[in-house]
Amino acid sequence: MKPQQAISPTREKDFSRWYQRVIQVADLAENSEVRGCMIIKPWGYALWENIQAALDCMLKATGHHNVYFPLFIPLSHLQREAKHVREFAKECAVVTHSRLETCDGGKLVPASPLKEPLIVRPTSETIIGSTFAKWIHSYRDLPILLNQWANVVRWEMRPRLFLRTTEFLWQEGHTVHATEAEATEETKRMLHLYESFARDYLALPVISGEKTISERFPGAVRTFCIEAMVQDRRAVQAGTSHFFGQNFSRASGIRFQSRSGRLEYAWTTSWGVSTRLVGTLIMMHSDDDGLVLPPRIAPIQVVVMPLLSKEETRTLVLTRAESVATRLRGACFCNQPIRVELDTRNLGYGTKKWEWIKKGVPIRLELGARDLETGSVALSRRDLSPEERRFLPTDQALAEVPRLLANIQANLLALATNFCSAHTCHVSSEREFYQFFTPRNAGRPEIHGGFVLAHWNDSSNIEEKLKADLKVTIRCIPFNVSKESGKCIFTGKPSPQRALFARSY
Amino acid sequence: MKPQQAISPTREKDFSRWYQRVIQVADLAENSEVRGCMIIKPWGYALWENIQAALDCMLKATGHHNVYFPLFIPLSHLQREAKHVREFAKECAVVTHSRLETCDGGKLVPASPLKEPLIVRPTSETIIGSTFAKWIHSYRDLPILLNQWANVVRWEMRPRLFLRTTEFLWQEGHTVHATEAEATEETKRMLHLYESFARDYLALPVISGEKTISERFPGAVRTFCIEAMVQDRRAVQAGTSHFFGQNFSRASGIRFQSRSGRLEYAWTTSWGVSTRLVGTLIMMHSDDDGLVLPPRIAPIQVVVMPLLSKEETRTLVLTRAESVATRLRGACFCNQPIRVELDTRNLGYGTKKWEWIKKGVPIRLELGARDLETGSVALSRRDLSPEERRFLPTDQALAEVPRLLANIQANLLALATNFCSAHTCHVSSEREFYQFFTPRNAGRPEIHGGFVLAHWNDSSNIEEKLKADLKVTIRCIPFNVSKESGKCIFTGKPSPQRALFARSY
Repeated sequence: MKPQQAISPTREKDFSRWYQRVIQVADLAENSEVRGCMIIKPWGYALWENIQAALDCMLKATGHHNVYFPLFIPLSHLQREAKHVREFAKECAVVTHSRLETCDGGKLVPASPLKEPLIVRPTSETIIGSTFAKWIHSYRDLPILLNQWANVVRWEMRPRLFLRTTEFLWQEGHTVHATEAEATEETKRMLHLYESFARDYLALPVISGEKTISERFPGAVRTFCIEAMVQDRRAVQAGTSHFFGQNFSRASGIRFQSRSGRLEYAWTTSWGVSTRLVGTLIMMHSDDDGLVLPPRIAPIQVVVMPLLSKEETRTLVLTRAESVATRLRGACFCNQPIRVELDTRNLGYGTKKWEWIKKGVPIRLELGARDLETGSVALSRRDLSPEERRFLPTDQALAEVPRLLANIQANLLALATNFCSAHTCHVSSEREFYQFFTPRNAGRPEIHGGFVLAHWNDSSNIEEKLKADLKVTIRCIPFNVSKESGKCIFTGKPSPQRALFARSY
Repeated sequence: MKPQQAISPTREKDFSRWYQRVIQVADLAENSEVRGCMIIKPWGYALWENIQAALDCMLKATGHHNVYFPLFIPLSHLQREAKHVREFAKECAVVTHSRLETCDGGKLVPASPLKEPLIVRPTSETIIGSTFAKWIHSYRDLPILLNQWANVVRWEMRPRLFLRTTEFLWQEGHTVHATEAEATEETKRMLHLYESFARDYLALPVISGEKTISERFPGAVRTFCIEAMVQDRRAVQAGTSHFFGQNFSRASGIRFQSRSGRLEYAWTTSWGVSTRLVGTLIMMHSDDDGLVLPPRIAPIQVVVMPLLSKEETRTLVLTRAESVATRLRGACFCNQPIRVELDTRNLGYGTKKWEWIKKGVPIRLELGARDLETGSVALSRRDLSPEERRFLPTDQALAEVPRLLANIQANLLALATNFCSAHTCHVSSEREFYQFFTPRNAGRPEIHGGFVLAHWNDSSNIEEKLKADLKVTIRCIPFNVSKESGKCIFTGKPSPQRALFARSY
């Protein structure tokens, strides 16, 4: 008898509610009483910690140093870059008082108004920029390669756990260079670093490219991004890297004496990924049984479940299970000890098993009284049929685990890559384009074609029309597609290469 | 010729300015343009990261899970515990608006007032408490053992880098238990964990004990703390652990069905340490040449400096230095690869050497052309005379490094312990007490006796008088002193044991 599926509704029925249910059954996060701010629970935070640890290593290995800048930005700082402030002014938390006092009715009210309001950072270009201006004097001070892990706040009208929250956690890199070429190189280097990270750790086959003018970060000269497809075929912008030219240097006065002795404005960049990555990987890999995790970032990679129902063999089974767990912890996957949980809780078999399935633990090893005699364990893979068990001699199972973890990691990437390819189309006419983004099935209005690669000639009018008609935007001008020229499918004008179109989160 | 001392003024001349100078010359942090908020620079942040990593391991090993709760607390939540809000209302940043708009004069002003103001968390008992109330139903849900690494804000009138800043970084543990005994045990377990951490990693011999009523955390039933002595003989409260009884459970409605089926209020605790630890260790270990770091938390444990002045031996010296660095990186100290920096920058010998001395790197290995022939390196220890060099055969030096690091760690703890003992006195009369806290030297008004252990009979009037007369407070009723009873030196009334008195930061 197959137990009830963990998730209702299924992905097919209602993707949006399915997503919320996955987060709930895997116990990843929940909404807080502060609208738009989420509570990240232990399992969700452990995922973020693993993302942090791996990415932090890669950032340090490329010469970046971690720092911490203030949470608050004086209003006047934010104003220094015109486009920047115009965008962020719409959605920022403003601190206006530094104290509370009890008023006549006994009610607490804000007191001690600040001379200048402070903005809770939505991003830190302006506060870091004004510090760079003080630190940098000569070309010898450059490059400066910094990174910060922090919380940021952007007031959010339609919040969605992990994908779009008022407060979110992220890393923001900020660098300063003596030349345009170096800054451009850094911008692209970090984009490619994000691309490898998404692929190698999160099993997400992202598409990297450059944003169009209308989608640029406010204040940037060029914005690059990685875009992931998730299972409802929409795009998620999973990371961005910005080349600022000299915009923020002019705004903040970041000047240096060049080799030739002239006073020049420096070239700056910034780049970031956030807790959004957690939402993206949930949406890409999970299924109707709950969360599915790539082993490299799974908080627990193998759960060992002794089946302790029979009293007379309880001690023996437990001892064997402990030995299995200990041996596994001594083994390595990707140069790190395997993360093993020994689940000896006094709960029913089905409850325990389904809990680990829903939480997406890659491998489950079960071990009962019968297995004592045969010297075997039952192994299940979360990425295949999670209930199916393969009985293996214990030694063989233990020897296989590292290879299996690698296999699961590769399998998730392959599945995602195939999914993404299967739902990405070259489109060569406007009619075809509109058809592609029209739902085929009245019962599932949210499911459409997926990603489109089509010629487009740089017209922002077309972008506005597509947004209004179909809620479709250009995600990027991708790097890794053939650069064959053609004609814009909307205007007929010449186009040097295809753009990537999609609906997005 | 001895080069100029790195720090002016010296500790003796002006401790407070010396402290600022150490932070400056070691490039740890600086004040930002937002009053009271600091910028933590790479070397300072790396220290904090090492503190985090080590402590995080200890917290996880004792069964705690990391989570993340919102930055903002609705005003009404903060108000639920009367003492709590009374204290924190004096110093909190209040968010009142969620947008900026341009007014007629072109000036940006706060817009979209919030229905209810939000407080930037000064600590998270109230927001976490209201979530616990939702999560907890039965004794089976307990204990809950959570921890959060976060930034908090307490408006600070007299800020001092690391020791007292408006925004600071910390960890805050929050736990819920079914019984008073379990909650008390947790409170003490975490205090002792902090005590070991301070001793074993930071080489700080702290004194642990219980706060008097007047020094309790607002809302706590009992507050425990660790107190460190620093080199001007003042105390720094380096960590606290609070037993809340059922106060916050009543305030937030955290109730559960007990084993006997009754609905009961749960028992809660919280505990935390912050970036204050960085300030404490600077004040305890550093000297007039700059920062001195305990090896276990030093971002770099050994710096290898090839002396590359002679062009003809440059390549050979460099190759040898690289090989020394590589071999060291393959060695371990405290079960982790040794953190090694190979400094090949094109700077003068003195500049480079003094930079590492000022930054407190425990061991410096220098290697020049002459050493090629003799096969030796010059080794210097930061904790002894940092300029003195011992010439050793390379193999011997490399073999010695792990032992030397352990030795330096132990030496710093021994020095601190001796210093603390030498400046802690048993005092048995009020006259003696006042003398002890009176400066002996007109030229150094800040230097007084240090810590006093004296009998005191629980009178808060005396505490107020000592604060007013001498700026002295009771730091704690220490655990680890002999519990001999006596008579209060101020009132003559019976006293069960001695209290610890000091001036503090």
